[in-house]
Amino acid sequence: MPAFAHRTAVMFQHCDPAGIVFYPRYFEMINAVVEVFFGTAIAWPFHRMHVVERVGVPMGRIEAEFPAASRLGDELDWSLTVARVGGASADLLLRAACGGETRVTARGTVVLVDLDRMKSRRWPDDRRAALEHYAEDVA
Amino acid sequence: MPAFAHRTAVMFQHCDPAGIVFYPRYFEMINAVVEVFFGTAIAWPFHRMHVVERVGVPMGRIEAEFPAASRLGDELDWSLTVARVGGASADLLLRAACGGETRVTARGTVVLVDLDRMKSRRWPDDRRAALEHYAEDVA
Amino acid sequence: MPAFAHRTAVMFQHCDPAGIVFYPRYFEMINAVVEVFFGTAIAWPFHRMHVVERVGVPMGRIEAEFPAASRLGDELDWSLTVARVGGASADLLLRAACGGETRVTARGTVVLVDLDRMKSRRWPDDRRAALEHYAEDVA
Amino acid sequence: MPAFAHRTAVMFQHCDPAGIVFYPRYFEMINAVVEVFFGTAIAWPFHRMHVVERVGVPMGRIEAEFPAASRLGDELDWSLTVARVGGASADLLLRAACGGETRVTARGTVVLVDLDRMKSRRWPDDRRAALEHYAEDVA
Repeated sequence: MPAFAHRTAVMFQHCDPAGIVFYPRYFEMINAVVEVFFGTAIAWPFHRMHVVERVGVPMGRIEAEFPAASRLGDELDWSLTVARVGGASADLLLRAACGGETRVTARGTVVLVDLDRMKSRRWPDDRRAALEHYAEDVA
Repeated sequence: MPAFAHRTAVMFQHCDPAGIVFYPRYFEMINAVVEVFFGTAIAWPFHRMHVVERVGVPMGRIEAEFPAASRLGDELDWSLTVARVGGASADLLLRAACGGETRVTARGTVVLVDLDRMKSRRWPDDRRAALEHYAEDVA
Repeated sequence: MPAFAHRTAVMFQHCDPAGIVFYPRYFEMINAVVEVFFGTAIAWPFHRMHVVERVGVPMGRIEAEFPAASRLGDELDWSLTVARVGGASADLLLRAACGGETRVTARGTVVLVDLDRMKSRRWPDDRRAALEHYAEDVA
Repeated sequence: MPAFAHRTAVMFQHCDPAGIVFYPRYFEMINAVVEVFFGTAIAWPFHRMHVVERVGVPMGRIEAEFPAASRLGDELDWSLTVARVGGASADLLLRAACGGETRVTARGTVVLVDLDRMKSRRWPDDRRAALEHYAEDVA
């Protein structure tokens, strides 16, 4: 059960007038973690997906909790695991912590789509295998 | 069961390289709908909250589905109802549609917090009454 | 010398931990004013440009001054005039004021480009005429 | 004449429907480069400025040119030098290049301000000395 790890600094641009991370910025961070995950762990960079192969992995649904606030200068340690790999989708679990305190937990479903037809399509076998390597409970 | 209504145009800044709304921008729109709702329907503008009264209504958790993509130039009709009013929190239901097609549904929990102590506090009675006016199942 | 007018509310998402508009958000607002200007005054909406005609008007250069800060809840009154119309470009002057106080002045050069070849192209005659209607000193 | 260096990846969130960086995102990147510069080269992190010392360095004016477009997956190499250090301000020169091609050049003036009184104040001597270390042509 390996988890993909990525670190994000909380920058000025993420923070609101209360001095804490504005929650839509967490979704930008989540998108960036997913983008780095696909680019490195799955070896399928977004520019290759979008420009060369004309596919994408938009988020179909997502739920997130924010149990504690993050502040300017915090370093967020993100982890990502794959909870489920479907025919054309995958459920991703993400968590961000700072100094051991959980700041964000999220579960999102990405769907592989053909960008020109805007229809879902099945994961290629090698991509599916790579995703399953990060699955939480592969038997 | 009145719903609060607000319209948002899909602008260039919301769209990604696939030409559709980048989902973190939906959360910016959701935040804006909530902000306009509090400013007009609850008569409690964010600048009064944050600057004068030193309180805020950060999102504690949120879940959203994106059943269909939105594109540059679409007009999104948002509706907001209140599903539950707790002691210091409220569950908000939001939906965005374009030409009758649902693009986003979301359920989020905002928490009233004292910004200086970062602790939750009870809704003032008049604000609670205003929130309950938008409750889904007021008898 | 007519000026195109547009009003923008300063929302929570625009403000930084100092409680004032984070200046990159002014450029998002400027882009939105330019987008509404093209969509209404020039009758050339961005979705028609980008999707149907495969052209765009990216910013080639821009300079901006921020003589006074804007705060949550301010209403910004934007004005836009056209300082110069070139073969494939146009210089736009923008100003945002709140209650008569100037908050932003900007001068930017947009360039009409063919998106598929990423090369500049001449304004169609009707678009040029429409732009010149908003020129500051049409003789 | 040392230059401060910082690398930024062009991510999905920076790109527009034309597949190139949306120029307001360059200003977010510029702000991030300035933030990392102050945090590391000047040893004055933004969270210390804003939260502990109640000062900030908002941008008073900025001009930028975008001679070539940047695309998803590009790596931008930023350099920052200090063109001028005034009593309470500093002119910063920034440049971003990818594979030797200039993508952005910018010159911006930051002003040191007391956040509670929103008035400019003089650079502390040690911060001024650190800024001058990055000056382009200190005699």
